[in-house]
Amino acid sequence: MRAIILFAHGARDPQWVQPFKTIQALARARLVDTPVELAFLEMMRPDLATAATALIEHGAKQITIVPLFMAQGGHLKHDVPQLVDAIRRDHPHVQLHLTPPIGEVDAILHAIADWIVDAR
Amino acid sequence: MRAIILFAHGARDPQWVQPFKTIQALARARLVDTPVELAFLEMMRPDLATAATALIEHGAKQITIVPLFMAQGGHLKHDVPQLVDAIRRDHPHVQLHLTPPIGEVDAILHAIADWIVDAR
Repeated sequence: MRAIILFAHGARDPQWVQPFKTIQALARARLVDTPVELAFLEMMRPDLATAATALIEHGAKQITIVPLFMAQGGHLKHDVPQLVDAIRRDHPHVQLHLTPPIGEVDAILHAIADWIVDAR
Repeated sequence: MRAIILFAHGARDPQWVQPFKTIQALARARLVDTPVELAFLEMMRPDLATAATALIEHGAKQITIVPLFMAQGGHLKHDVPQLVDAIRRDHPHVQLHLTPPIGEVDAILHAIADWIVDAR
């Protein structure tokens, strides 16, 4: 079974998570046989290892981790690869794939630019 | 003259800014008569007031501020309206318009979900 983890920063304000829940719902509607879960770097739960372990216990053999970050700062460059490596060590039979962050995806940057042009 | 400020969080890592520079370039290519500048909440320059003042000194009468944040935490809910109010007090003849953050824009959330479906 394949699964997807949408990985976001986290914040103290519970309403902060709403856009990520919307993205999760949109992805789930398109991927009815693929679990799509959220995980957070800090201040919200579950963390990445907890989300991955739960999916693996439910039979996931391939997990794609999608960082819902606009840009790569220290968190993505250093912390996230270490988190992913730790999951790989604990679950060597599971394939983990870490995608680029959304701020490196041309189609998303174009969608943002289109909206800026309209919002002017 | 109209102008746009793309407002991002900022980070210590200078490469962090790259996606925002790409969005700026895409928007500038579509809006040849409208200045499009970046400003930052912290750790990078210029700040919002400095960017707005420079545009006003160059003749901007209407400035649209676009928060390039995925979600609204304490920064956007509290800090940004205060920053915008301070600019309004200093420049009462300029119209300032603060848009929702990109994480509240349906077209952008759909573009992200589309990419997740393809990235799986």
